Amino acid sequence: MITKAIHSSDLAGMEQRYRAACINSLGGFKSIQLVGSKSKDGQSNLAIFNSIVHLGANPPLIGMIVRPDSVERHTYENILATGFYTLNHIHEEMYVRAHQTSARYPRNESEFIQCGLNEEYKDGFYAPYVQESKVQIGVALRDKIHIPLNKTILVVGEIVSVYLPESALQADGFIDLEKAGTLAGSGLDSYHRTSVLNRLSYAKPGSDPSPLPR
Amino acid sequence: MITKAIHSSDLAGMEQRYRAACINSLGGFKSIQLVGSKSKDGQSNLAIFNSIVHLGANPPLIGMIVRPDSVERHTYENILATGFYTLNHIHEEMYVRAHQTSARYPRNESEFIQCGLNEEYKDGFYAPYVQESKVQIGVALRDKIHIPLNKTILVVGEIVSVYLPESALQADGFIDLEKAGTLAGSGLDSYHRTSVLNRLSYAKPGSDPSPLPR
Repeated sequence: MITKAIHSSDLAGMEQRYRAACINSLGGFKSIQLVGSKSKDGQSNLAIFNSIVHLGANPPLIGMIVRPDSVERHTYENILATGFYTLNHIHEEMYVRAHQTSARYPRNESEFIQCGLNEEYKDGFYAPYVQESKVQIGVALRDKIHIPLNKTILVVGEIVSVYLPESALQADGFIDLEKAGTLAGSGLDSYHRTSVLNRLSYAKPGSDPSPLPR
Repeated sequence: MITKAIHSSDLAGMEQRYRAACINSLGGFKSIQLVGSKSKDGQSNLAIFNSIVHLGANPPLIGMIVRPDSVERHTYENILATGFYTLNHIHEEMYVRAHQTSARYPRNESEFIQCGLNEEYKDGFYAPYVQESKVQIGVALRDKIHIPLNKTILVVGEIVSVYLPESALQADGFIDLEKAGTLAGSGLDSYHRTSVLNRLSYAKPGSDPSPLPR
Protein backbone atom coordinates (compact mmCIF):
# COMPACT_ATOMS: atom_id res chain seq x y z
CA MET A 1 0.00 0.00 0.00
CA ILE A 2 1.40 3.38 -1.03
CA THR A 3 0.65 5.94 1.67
CA LYS A 4 0.00 9.56 0.85
CA ALA A 5 0.78 12.15 3.53
CA ILE A 6 -1.10 15.44 3.66
CA HIS A 7 -0.09 18.18 6.10
CA SER A 8 -1.51 21.55 7.18
CA SER A 9 0.21 23.48 4.43
CA ASP A 10 -1.16 21.07 1.81
CA LEU A 11 -4.65 21.43 3.24
CA ALA A 12 -4.38 25.22 3.23
CA GLY A 13 -3.32 25.18 -0.41
CA MET A 14 -6.16 23.01 -1.68
CA GLU A 15 -8.80 24.41 -3.99
CA GLN A 16 -11.95 25.01 -1.93
CA ARG A 17 -14.19 22.27 -3.33
CA TYR A 18 -11.33 19.75 -3.34
CA ARG A 19 -10.67 20.47 0.32
CA ALA A 20 -14.36 20.22 1.18
CA ALA A 21 -14.58 16.78 -0.46
CA CYS A 22 -11.39 15.60 1.25
CA ILE A 23 -12.11 16.84 4.78
CA ASN A 24 -15.73 15.69 4.64
CA SER A 25 -14.48 12.20 3.78
CA LEU A 26 -12.04 11.98 6.68
CA GLY A 27 -14.81 11.98 9.25
CA GLY A 28 -15.66 8.45 8.17
CA PHE A 29 -19.10 7.06 7.39
CA LYS A 30 -21.87 9.16 8.74
CA SER A 31 -25.52 9.43 9.43
CA ILE A 32 -27.59 11.05 6.70
CA GLN A 33 -31.06 12.15 7.63
CA LEU A 34 -33.76 14.40 6.26
CA VAL A 35 -34.68 17.26 8.59
CA GLY A 36 -38.33 18.30 8.30
CA SER A 37 -39.51 21.65 9.61
CA LYS A 38 -42.29 24.19 9.10
CA SER A 39 -42.34 27.95 9.50
CA LYS A 40 -44.85 29.70 11.75
CA ASP A 41 -46.89 30.65 8.69
CA GLY A 42 -47.05 27.05 7.51
CA GLN A 43 -44.31 26.80 4.86
CA SER A 44 -42.71 23.35 5.09
CA ASN A 45 -39.03 22.71 4.50
CA LEU A 46 -36.93 19.60 4.04
CA ALA A 47 -33.14 19.39 4.04
CA ILE A 48 -30.59 16.59 4.09
CA PHE A 49 -28.06 16.75 6.93
CA ASN A 50 -24.91 14.67 7.35
CA SER A 51 -23.54 16.08 10.59
CA ILE A 52 -25.83 14.43 13.10
CA VAL A 53 -24.33 13.19 16.33
CA HIS A 54 -25.57 11.21 19.31
CA LEU A 55 -25.23 13.31 22.46
CA GLY A 56 -26.68 11.13 25.18
CA ALA A 57 -29.45 8.71 26.07
CA ASN A 58 -30.75 10.17 29.36
CA PRO A 59 -32.21 12.60 28.51
CA PRO A 60 -32.37 11.37 24.88
CA LEU A 61 -30.39 14.09 23.09
CA ILE A 62 -29.29 14.30 19.47
CA GLY A 63 -27.20 17.04 17.91
CA MET A 64 -26.63 18.41 14.45
CA ILE A 65 -24.21 20.98 13.10
CA VAL A 66 -25.86 23.81 11.17
CA ARG A 67 -24.20 26.29 8.83
CA PRO A 68 -26.48 29.33 9.01
CA ASP A 69 -24.98 30.96 5.92
CA SER A 70 -25.88 27.98 3.71
CA VAL A 71 -28.94 26.28 2.24
CA GLU A 72 -29.52 25.04 5.79
CA ARG A 73 -30.66 28.46 7.01
CA HIS A 74 -34.38 27.93 6.30
CA THR A 75 -34.32 24.80 8.42
CA TYR A 76 -32.54 26.61 11.24
CA GLU A 77 -34.92 29.57 11.17
CA ASN A 78 -37.93 27.25 11.34
CA ILE A 79 -36.44 25.35 14.27
CA LEU A 80 -35.73 28.57 16.18
CA ALA A 81 -39.19 29.97 15.44
CA THR A 82 -41.22 26.86 16.30
CA GLY A 83 -39.01 24.72 18.55
CA PHE A 84 -39.70 21.47 16.68
CA TYR A 85 -38.28 19.44 13.81
CA THR A 86 -38.11 15.86 12.58
CA LEU A 87 -35.27 13.53 11.62
CA ASN A 88 -36.05 10.93 8.98
CA HIS A 89 -33.82 8.05 7.95
CA ILE A 90 -33.07 7.57 4.25
CA HIS A 91 -33.37 4.26 2.38
CA GLU A 92 -32.46 3.12 -1.10
CA GLU A 93 -35.78 3.91 -2.79
CA MET A 94 -35.58 7.59 -1.79
CA TYR A 95 -31.92 8.59 -1.57
CA VAL A 96 -31.85 10.40 -4.92
CA ARG A 97 -34.86 12.51 -3.89
CA ALA A 98 -33.27 13.06 -0.47
CA HIS A 99 -30.06 14.33 -2.11
CA GLN A 100 -32.07 16.72 -4.27
CA THR A 101 -33.25 18.58 -1.14
CA SER A 102 -29.75 20.09 -0.98
CA ALA A 103 -30.52 22.26 -4.05
CA ARG A 104 -31.06 25.96 -3.30
CA TYR A 105 -34.82 26.33 -3.58
CA PRO A 106 -36.37 29.70 -2.73
CA ARG A 107 -37.97 30.03 0.69
CA ASN A 108 -41.54 29.90 -0.65
CA GLU A 109 -41.04 26.53 -2.36
CA SER A 110 -41.21 23.36 -0.27
CA GLU A 111 -38.56 20.74 -0.92
CA PHE A 112 -41.24 18.15 -0.14
CA ILE A 113 -43.09 19.15 -3.31
CA GLN A 114 -40.02 19.95 -5.41
CA CYS A 115 -38.30 16.67 -4.58
CA GLY A 116 -41.31 14.35 -4.60
CA LEU A 117 -41.51 13.42 -0.93
CA ASN A 118 -44.65 13.54 1.20
CA GLU A 119 -45.33 15.40 4.43
CA GLU A 120 -46.85 13.35 7.22
CA TYR A 121 -48.34 14.83 10.38
CA LYS A 122 -49.22 12.75 13.41
CA ASP A 123 -49.84 12.77 17.15
CA GLY A 124 -50.19 16.56 17.11
CA PHE A 125 -46.51 17.20 16.31
CA TYR A 126 -45.97 20.55 14.56
CA ALA A 127 -43.17 19.59 12.17
CA PRO A 128 -43.68 17.31 9.16
CA TYR A 129 -42.31 13.80 9.05
CA VAL A 130 -41.25 12.27 5.73
CA GLN A 131 -43.92 9.71 4.91
CA GLU A 132 -41.51 7.60 2.85
CA SER A 133 -39.02 7.19 5.74
CA LYS A 134 -39.18 3.99 7.78
CA VAL A 135 -37.56 5.53 10.84
CA GLN A 136 -39.02 8.91 11.83
CA ILE A 137 -37.99 10.93 14.87
CA GLY A 138 -39.77 13.92 16.40
CA VAL A 139 -37.35 16.34 18.08
CA ALA A 140 -37.82 19.33 20.39
CA LEU A 141 -35.18 22.07 20.40
CA ARG A 142 -33.38 22.23 23.75
CA ASP A 143 -30.25 24.31 23.16
CA LYS A 144 -28.14 25.94 20.48
CA ILE A 145 -24.43 26.18 21.02
CA HIS A 146 -22.20 28.41 18.93
CA ILE A 147 -18.84 27.14 17.69
CA PRO A 148 -16.89 30.37 17.34
CA LEU A 149 -14.02 28.96 15.23
CA ASN A 150 -16.11 28.57 12.10
CA LYS A 151 -19.43 30.19 13.04
CA THR A 152 -21.39 26.95 12.95
CA ILE A 153 -23.99 25.97 15.52
CA LEU A 154 -24.59 22.74 17.38
CA VAL A 155 -28.37 22.37 17.56
CA VAL A 156 -29.24 20.22 20.57
CA GLY A 157 -32.59 18.44 20.40
CA GLU A 158 -34.49 16.05 22.64
CA ILE A 159 -36.07 13.02 21.00
CA VAL A 160 -39.76 13.08 21.92
CA SER A 161 -41.33 10.64 19.43
CA VAL A 162 -40.02 7.72 17.38
CA TYR A 163 -41.73 5.65 14.69
CA LEU A 164 -39.94 2.60 13.37
CA PRO A 165 -40.61 -0.85 11.92
CA GLU A 166 -41.48 -3.10 14.84
CA SER A 167 -39.37 -5.84 13.26
CA ALA A 168 -36.23 -3.68 13.55
CA LEU A 169 -36.43 -3.23 17.33
CA GLN A 170 -34.47 -5.95 19.12
CA ALA A 171 -35.09 -7.38 22.59
CA ASP A 172 -32.30 -5.29 24.18
CA GLY A 173 -33.34 -1.95 22.65
CA PHE A 174 -30.90 -2.07 19.72
CA ILE A 175 -32.46 -1.04 16.42
CA ASP A 176 -31.38 -3.12 13.43
CA LEU A 177 -31.01 -0.30 10.93
CA GLU A 178 -30.39 -2.72 8.09
CA LYS A 179 -33.89 -4.11 8.57
CA ALA A 180 -35.14 -0.55 8.11
CA GLY A 181 -32.97 -0.11 5.00
CA THR A 182 -31.20 2.92 6.50
CA LEU A 183 -28.26 4.11 4.38
CA ALA A 184 -24.92 5.59 5.43
CA GLY A 185 -23.16 8.54 3.81
CA SER A 186 -19.58 9.56 3.15
CA GLY A 187 -18.03 12.75 1.89
CA LEU A 188 -20.56 15.22 0.53
CA ASP A 189 -22.40 13.07 -1.96
CA SER A 190 -21.76 9.34 -1.53
CA TYR A 191 -24.47 6.90 -0.41
CA HIS A 192 -23.86 3.41 0.93
CA ARG A 193 -25.69 0.23 1.87
CA THR A 194 -24.28 -1.61 4.86
CA SER A 195 -23.90 -5.24 5.83
CA VAL A 196 -23.31 -6.15 9.44
CA LEU A 197 -20.15 -7.95 10.53
CA ASN A 198 -21.21 -8.48 14.13
CA ARG A 199 -22.43 -6.93 17.29
CA LEU A 200 -19.77 -7.44 19.96
CA SER A 201 -20.21 -8.14 23.66
CA TYR A 202 -19.55 -5.48 26.31
CA ALA A 203 -15.78 -5.16 26.62
CA LYS A 204 -14.05 -6.08 29.90
CA PRO A 205 -10.34 -6.18 30.72
CA GLY A 206 -8.90 -9.68 30.52
CA SER A 207 -11.38 -11.24 28.09
CA ASP A 208 -11.87 -10.86 24.33
CA PRO A 209 -15.15 -9.52 22.97
CA SER A 210 -17.37 -12.15 21.37
CA PRO A 211 -20.07 -11.78 18.74
CA LEU A 212 -23.56 -11.38 20.17
CA PRO A 213 -26.03 -14.06 19.02
CA ARG A 214 -28.36 -13.00 16.22
CA MET B 1 -44.80 -3.00 7.77
CA ILE B 2 -46.02 -2.78 11.38
CA THR B 3 -44.91 0.53 12.85
CA LYS B 4 -44.04 0.89 16.49
CA ALA B 5 -44.49 4.30 18.09
CA ILE B 6 -42.36 5.36 21.06
CA HIS B 7 -43.04 8.63 22.90
CA SER B 8 -41.33 10.62 25.65
CA SER B 9 -43.04 8.77 28.48
CA ASP B 10 -41.99 5.41 26.98
CA LEU B 11 -38.41 6.64 26.68
CA ALA B 12 -38.39 7.87 30.28
CA GLY B 13 -39.65 4.50 31.48
CA MET B 14 -37.05 2.40 29.67
CA GLU B 15 -34.42 0.46 31.61
CA GLN B 16 -31.14 2.36 31.36
CA ARG B 17 -29.20 -0.02 29.09
CA TYR B 18 -32.23 -0.63 26.89
CA ARG B 19 -32.65 3.12 26.41
CA ALA B 20 -28.93 3.57 25.68
CA ALA B 21 -29.07 0.88 22.97
CA CYS B 22 -32.23 2.36 21.46
CA ILE B 23 -31.23 6.04 21.45
CA ASN B 24 -27.72 5.26 20.22
CA SER B 25 -29.27 3.43 17.26
CA LEU B 26 -31.57 6.27 16.23
CA GLY B 27 -28.67 8.50 15.24
CA GLY B 28 -28.13 6.27 12.22
CA PHE B 29 -24.86 4.83 10.98
CA LYS B 30 -21.86 6.59 12.39
CA SER B 31 -18.18 7.04 12.22
CA ILE B 32 -16.14 4.82 14.52
CA GLN B 33 -12.55 5.81 15.06
CA LEU B 34 -9.76 5.05 17.50
CA VAL B 35 -8.52 8.10 19.37
CA GLY B 36 -4.83 7.89 20.26
CA SER B 37 -3.33 10.10 22.94
CA LYS B 38 -0.40 10.24 25.34
CA SER B 39 -0.05 11.82 28.78
CA LYS B 40 2.71 14.32 29.55
CA ASP B 41 4.65 11.59 31.33
CA GLY B 42 4.47 9.30 28.31
CA GLN B 43 1.58 6.93 29.06
CA SER B 44 -0.24 6.16 25.83
CA ASN B 45 -3.99 5.67 25.63
CA LEU B 46 -6.34 4.37 22.95
CA ALA B 47 -10.14 4.60 22.96
CA ILE B 48 -12.88 3.93 20.44
CA PHE B 49 -15.25 6.85 19.79
CA ASN B 50 -18.51 6.80 17.88
CA SER B 51 -19.61 10.40 18.21
CA ILE B 52 -17.32 12.08 15.71
CA VAL B 53 -18.73 14.85 13.56
CA HIS B 54 -17.48 16.93 10.64
CA LEU B 55 -17.50 20.61 11.61
CA GLY B 56 -16.06 22.36 8.59
CA ALA B 57 -13.44 22.21 5.86
CA ASN B 58 -11.88 25.68 6.11
CA PRO B 59 -10.27 25.55 8.59
CA PRO B 60 -10.39 21.74 8.62
CA LEU B 61 -12.26 21.07 11.88
CA ILE B 62 -13.53 17.82 13.31
CA GLY B 63 -15.49 17.38 16.53
CA MET B 64 -16.15 14.60 18.98
CA ILE B 65 -18.44 14.33 21.98
CA VAL B 66 -16.68 13.30 25.18
CA ARG B 67 -18.28 12.01 28.40
CA PRO B 68 -15.75 13.00 31.07
CA ASP B 69 -17.30 10.72 33.71
CA SER B 70 -16.74 7.61 31.55
CA VAL B 71 -13.90 5.44 30.28
CA GLU B 72 -13.22 8.34 27.92
CA ARG B 73 -11.77 10.53 30.70
CA HIS B 74 -8.15 9.40 30.22
CA THR B 75 -8.32 10.40 26.57
CA TYR B 76 -9.82 13.76 27.45
CA GLU B 77 -7.22 14.48 30.15
CA ASN B 78 -4.39 13.68 27.73
CA ILE B 79 -5.87 15.94 25.06
CA LEU B 80 -6.24 18.83 27.51
CA ALA B 81 -2.72 18.33 28.88
CA THR B 82 -0.88 17.98 25.56
CA GLY B 83 -3.12 19.56 22.92
CA PHE B 84 -2.78 16.71 20.43
CA TYR B 85 -4.51 13.45 19.54
CA THR B 86 -5.00 11.14 16.58
CA LEU B 87 -8.05 9.71 14.83
CA ASN B 88 -7.61 6.31 13.20
CA HIS B 89 -10.10 4.56 10.94
CA ILE B 90 -11.08 0.98 11.75
CA HIS B 91 -11.13 -1.88 9.21
CA GLU B 92 -12.31 -5.45 9.34
CA GLU B 93 -9.03 -7.04 10.46
CA MET B 94 -8.89 -4.91 13.61
CA TYR B 95 -12.45 -4.10 14.67
CA VAL B 96 -12.57 -6.66 17.49
CA ARG B 97 -9.35 -5.23 18.97
CA ALA B 98 -10.72 -1.70 18.46
CA HIS B 99 -13.91 -2.61 20.36
CA GLN B 100 -11.83 -4.02 23.21
CA THR B 101 -10.34 -0.55 23.88
CA SER B 102 -13.72 0.34 25.46
CA ALA B 103 -12.94 -1.90 28.45
CA ARG B 104 -12.08 -0.05 31.68
CA TYR B 105 -8.34 -0.49 31.92
CA PRO B 106 -6.49 1.29 34.74
CA ARG B 107 -4.69 4.51 33.86
CA ASN B 108 -1.22 2.94 33.97
CA GLU B 109 -2.06 0.28 31.36
CA SER B 110 -2.01 1.22 27.69
CA GLU B 111 -4.89 -0.05 25.58
CA PHE B 112 -2.37 -0.34 22.73
CA ILE B 113 -0.64 -3.17 24.60
CA GLN B 114 -3.73 -4.66 26.21
CA CYS B 115 -5.65 -4.80 22.93
CA GLY B 116 -2.82 -5.80 20.59
CA LEU B 117 -2.51 -2.65 18.49
CA ASN B 118 0.73 -0.83 17.74
CA GLU B 119 1.72 2.77 18.40
CA GLU B 120 3.21 4.63 15.48
CA TYR B 121 4.99 7.98 15.77
CA LYS B 122 5.87 10.11 12.76
CA ASP B 123 6.68 13.59 11.53
CA GLY B 124 7.32 14.76 15.11
CA PHE B 125 3.68 14.48 16.16
CA TYR B 126 3.29 13.94 19.92
CA ALA B 127 0.30 11.60 19.94
CA PRO B 128 0.48 7.97 18.77
CA TYR B 129 -1.17 6.84 15.54
CA VAL B 130 -2.50 3.29 15.25
CA GLN B 131 -0.08 1.49 12.96
CA GLU B 132 -2.75 -0.95 11.77
CA SER B 133 -5.10 1.82 10.58
CA LYS B 134 -5.08 2.70 6.89
CA VAL B 135 -6.42 6.22 7.43
CA GLN B 136 -4.65 8.14 10.20
CA ILE B 137 -5.36 11.73 11.17
CA GLY B 138 -3.29 14.00 13.41
CA VAL B 139 -5.42 16.55 15.25
CA ALA B 140 -4.60 19.65 17.31
CA LEU B 141 -7.04 20.73 20.03
CA ARG B 142 -8.64 24.09 19.17
CA ASP B 143 -11.63 24.44 21.50
CA LYS B 144 -13.75 22.59 24.04
CA ILE B 145 -17.40 23.46 24.28
CA HIS B 146 -19.57 22.38 27.18
CA ILE B 147 -23.07 21.05 26.57
CA PRO B 148 -24.80 21.92 29.84
CA LEU B 149 -27.87 19.70 29.37
CA ASN B 150 -25.97 16.45 29.91
CA LYS B 151 -22.49 17.60 30.95
CA THR B 152 -20.80 16.32 27.81
CA ILE B 153 -18.16 18.24 25.90
CA LEU B 154 -17.69 18.91 22.20
CA VAL B 155 -13.95 18.68 21.60
CA VAL B 156 -13.07 20.76 18.53
CA GLY B 157 -9.89 19.77 16.73
CA GLU B 158 -8.05 20.97 13.65
CA ILE B 159 -6.80 18.33 11.24
CA VAL B 160 -3.07 18.94 10.79
CA SER B 161 -1.84 15.69 9.23
CA VAL B 162 -3.44 12.92 7.22
CA TYR B 163 -2.03 9.57 6.05
CA LEU B 164 -4.13 7.47 3.71
CA PRO B 165 -3.79 4.93 0.89
CA GLU B 166 -2.94 6.90 -2.23
CA SER B 167 -5.34 4.68 -4.20
CA ALA B 168 -8.29 5.88 -2.09
CA LEU B 169 -7.83 9.59 -2.91
CA GLN B 170 -9.90 10.54 -5.95
CA ALA B 171 -9.23 13.32 -8.47
CA ASP B 172 -11.75 15.69 -6.86
CA GLY B 173 -10.54 15.25 -3.28
CA PHE B 174 -13.13 12.64 -2.31
CA ILE B 175 -11.68 9.73 -0.33
CA ASP B 176 -13.07 6.31 -1.26
CA LEU B 177 -13.36 4.90 2.26
CA GLU B 178 -14.32 1.47 0.92
CA LYS B 179 -10.90 1.23 -0.74
CA ALA B 180 -9.43 1.85 2.72
CA GLY B 181 -11.71 -0.79 4.25
CA THR B 182 -13.16 1.73 6.73
CA LEU B 183 -16.11 0.34 8.70
CA ALA B 184 -19.27 2.06 9.92
CA GLY B 185 -20.87 1.62 13.33
CA SER B 186 -24.40 1.61 14.71
CA GLY B 187 -25.77 1.56 18.20
CA LEU B 188 -23.15 0.89 20.85
CA ASP B 189 -21.61 -2.31 19.55
CA SER B 190 -22.50 -3.05 15.92
CA TYR B 191 -19.94 -2.99 13.10
CA HIS B 192 -20.74 -2.81 9.40
CA ARG B 193 -19.12 -3.09 6.00
CA THR B 194 -20.47 -0.76 3.35
CA SER B 195 -21.08 -0.98 -0.37
CA VAL B 196 -21.55 2.16 -2.39
CA LEU B 197 -24.76 2.86 -4.25
CA ASN B 198 -23.56 6.00 -6.00
CA ARG B 199 -22.06 9.40 -5.63
CA LEU B 200 -24.60 11.95 -6.84
CA SER B 201 -24.02 15.17 -8.74
CA TYR B 202 -24.33 18.58 -7.06
CA ALA B 203 -28.05 19.27 -6.66
CA LYS B 204 -29.66 22.18 -8.52
CA PRO B 205 -33.31 23.21 -8.69
CA GLY B 206 -35.03 21.99 -11.85
CA SER B 207 -32.80 19.01 -12.65
CA ASP B 208 -32.49 15.56 -11.08
CA PRO B 209 -29.21 14.45 -9.55
CA SER B 210 -27.28 11.93 -11.62
CA PRO B 211 -24.69 9.36 -10.55
CA LEU B 212 -21.11 10.58 -10.84
CA PRO B 213 -18.92 8.45 -13.11
CA ARG B 214 -16.67 5.98 -11.29
